[in-house]
Amino acid sequence: MNSTSPQPAARPALPELFLRDLRAAFPESAVLTRHEDLIPYGFDGTAALRQLPGAVVFPRDAAGVAAVLRLARTHRVPVVSRGSGTGLSGGSIPVPGCVVLCLGDMNRILELDTKNLTLLAEPGVITQRIYDTADAAGLFYPPDPGSMKISTIGGNVSENAGGLRGLKYGVTRNYVMGLEVVLADGSTVWLGNKCVKDVAGYNLRDLFIGSEGTLGVITKVLLRLLPKPAARQTLLATYASMDAAAETVSAIIAAKIIPCTLEFLDQRTLRCVEAFAKVGLPTEAEALLLIETDGHPAAVADEAERIEQICRAQSALAVRRAASADEATRLATARRSAFSALARLRPTTILEDATVPRSELAKMIRFINETAARHQVEVATFGHFGDGNLHPTFLTDERNQAEMHRVEAAMKEIFDYALSLGGTLTGEHGVGLAKKAFLPRQLGDPTLELLRAIKRTLDPEGLLNPGKIFD
Amino acid sequence: MNSTSPQPAARPALPELFLRDLRAAFPESAVLTRHEDLIPYGFDGTAALRQLPGAVVFPRDAAGVAAVLRLARTHRVPVVSRGSGTGLSGGSIPVPGCVVLCLGDMNRILELDTKNLTLLAEPGVITQRIYDTADAAGLFYPPDPGSMKISTIGGNVSENAGGLRGLKYGVTRNYVMGLEVVLADGSTVWLGNKCVKDVAGYNLRDLFIGSEGTLGVITKVLLRLLPKPAARQTLLATYASMDAAAETVSAIIAAKIIPCTLEFLDQRTLRCVEAFAKVGLPTEAEALLLIETDGHPAAVADEAERIEQICRAQSALAVRRAASADEATRLATARRSAFSALARLRPTTILEDATVPRSELAKMIRFINETAARHQVEVATFGHFGDGNLHPTFLTDERNQAEMHRVEAAMKEIFDYALSLGGTLTGEHGVGLAKKAFLPRQLGDPTLELLRAIKRTLDPEGLLNPGKIFD
Repeated sequence: MNSTSPQPAARPALPELFLRDLRAAFPESAVLTRHEDLIPYGFDGTAALRQLPGAVVFPRDAAGVAAVLRLARTHRVPVVSRGSGTGLSGGSIPVPGCVVLCLGDMNRILELDTKNLTLLAEPGVITQRIYDTADAAGLFYPPDPGSMKISTIGGNVSENAGGLRGLKYGVTRNYVMGLEVVLADGSTVWLGNKCVKDVAGYNLRDLFIGSEGTLGVITKVLLRLLPKPAARQTLLATYASMDAAAETVSAIIAAKIIPCTLEFLDQRTLRCVEAFAKVGLPTEAEALLLIETDGHPAAVADEAERIEQICRAQSALAVRRAASADEATRLATARRSAFSALARLRPTTILEDATVPRSELAKMIRFINETAARHQVEVATFGHFGDGNLHPTFLTDERNQAEMHRVEAAMKEIFDYALSLGGTLTGEHGVGLAKKAFLPRQLGDPTLELLRAIKRTLDPEGLLNPGKIFD
Repeated sequence: MNSTSPQPAARPALPELFLRDLRAAFPESAVLTRHEDLIPYGFDGTAALRQLPGAVVFPRDAAGVAAVLRLARTHRVPVVSRGSGTGLSGGSIPVPGCVVLCLGDMNRILELDTKNLTLLAEPGVITQRIYDTADAAGLFYPPDPGSMKISTIGGNVSENAGGLRGLKYGVTRNYVMGLEVVLADGSTVWLGNKCVKDVAGYNLRDLFIGSEGTLGVITKVLLRLLPKPAARQTLLATYASMDAAAETVSAIIAAKIIPCTLEFLDQRTLRCVEAFAKVGLPTEAEALLLIETDGHPAAVADEAERIEQICRAQSALAVRRAASADEATRLATARRSAFSALARLRPTTILEDATVPRSELAKMIRFINETAARHQVEVATFGHFGDGNLHPTFLTDERNQAEMHRVEAAMKEIFDYALSLGGTLTGEHGVGLAKKAFLPRQLGDPTLELLRAIKRTLDPEGLLNPGKIFD
């Protein structure tokens, strides 16, 4: 949320010489400059943020990316890189007078190494294709951001995307072994390798992961894969109260069980999802948990049994096990549709991802609901309960300024409260434009100054996705 | 290996005013300056590297650390921080005219949070105590560097220590959720929190992990714990050839099994370990694998059975299962004694950790043996086979210059070959002083220049552990 206009802003002209050089370096079809061609690149998945770029360029390889960065440097043109534009914090929204560097055409899977369990991909590969390629070889790429059917792996790495399996399997960062990165000066570096252990020099790979395109442009990603779990079991548990659902999560962890998925839907989300996906969810419940355990068949059977007992002991209204893999997939797909389902209700959907230590979940949800009521705004909450990663989702209308102000006020209170519980503004969506106003409160001045120093070191001219994360 | 003399070098004097200020800021017992008191701080676990510091100071908290760094900055005195000094790459060897900042007195476990599965510790806590504290609560801290009984957690984080469970559980980095770090200017920052997911700003936490004390001083560590695996099974397999052992590793991974431990001993190591630990290892074998699987009891039983079959199919001479937890512990302890056992053979023991992608193990071991023979040096090799993390260990005598030159020549060839296979100079020991001459070859100029830029940004005066990792 910031002052960017809901209407695409006028497009500041790019330097003529830059455009001339860009056109000389790339085929005609790889450079867009006509107004109507630029429109799709003027927004991403974030509500209420739009800005037309000056041009869009589609490089085919690292050399092409380096050429764009060198030209941009020569002509002092800001560069905003992007994949599919599914981001939810405005990280790939153009800045005025920028060139958008779209990596969607760099979409080859370069290697699947079944001996070392790695996969090498270009940044524009769709996440689902990574999963499917691994799956076909009996392997498993665990990170599964909600948008995985359309998001790119380069975007996932740049935002350090999370997903539904974070509790047991971690996030994108945990599966990146190496990166090829083109730096602001156009030089190319390789960070990491296929070694499971490597401590030769500072870990710069992890600095680029989650840096939201502000430190360099990722041109190759070396991913770590796991063997595919042999079995999987999905359970649904419904509750008459939020607290009982939250207590169930604590009780499962206390029983030393780490399910791979532990998702939560509140009643409003539940009803929306059911209306949208029609999978037979019990819409009268206050809260629903979708729990998945995976691994060795005997371990899965045993864990599913214990989880069911724990749910019942915590006063679940009903516990149901998916009878088949098909039913499990339908339930998971229904959960994945939460954002789309909620987006049908009102013109503007603002999906937040305030996150707290797992022990503080119940308090946080209660506060979200109280705050929404107090500010008279509509909020539906779902998310990754096992990770403490909540998605309070504001259902509003960006044309209604008074309501938008109330939404902003409620959001600010929610962020402040999450921080007071030892939480974070953003568990998996990034800071981008949408949350940068709140970041100083979370990090404090010395840490923020460190971030700025790192940015100045890696991008001294300040041309890579400027104004994102911090000013 | 470098030109530092095997005898403690003369001690360059510290500025008198620095010592006066240091003594004014700390109790008398917390500042050492007498020659005989300094001797234990003039070396670490690395062979042939010694240098007396000018003084040693023992702060009690982050404020004390900050006071040392501020005084060091005022008087331009280099600071070398250390824990127990178990490092194997010379990372905590003093530099001439430095003050050693010893964190051994900051050794409290501050919190065990069983709801969020975290543990907060000061840097001087011994790694084994972290493990034991978790274990007593039914939890599990997986990283287990060979030195865990005497190493400190601060040292483990600074070197990103590995261990025997890396294949399944990863290394120290994978268990660090947060760090308190005192920066070169004396300011203190907190990086990270108890949230399983957090993408608010650049990941600086991972930059400090493995930075070998060159970017700041770690004063608190927030660790992630797991539920303790319910069962464990240990197997020993012996082979008449190295290749058959290496093939077994590939076959286990190809069967989609990830054991928690997959250790390897060559015949020389095997014989030394048996002479030292007397646990009944079959000393006639060319190679031995120590394999451990853990998790759900049914999964463990099944995996152990399948591993045994694979070992036999790969021509193992014998496969033996530990009959009890006690026997498993004895076997693991024997493996852990490899370094100590080898160290009894010759006056100087140089333990390397060249690491390659798992698929290149057999080639790498063959090359190590050929190279040792060609240079007429003694080498025994053991290590973490599942990680491709080898410990070719040179048995030599630092007083014999001609032999030491041959050792250095062999080491250089081994490093070059590891790199040609896509490997790394160091899987888990760090660069420190011992390997900095080789680092440029691995990283290349643009990456090395990035490392230097990061160092200049975080330590502009160059006072934190100067001359380590790179010049």
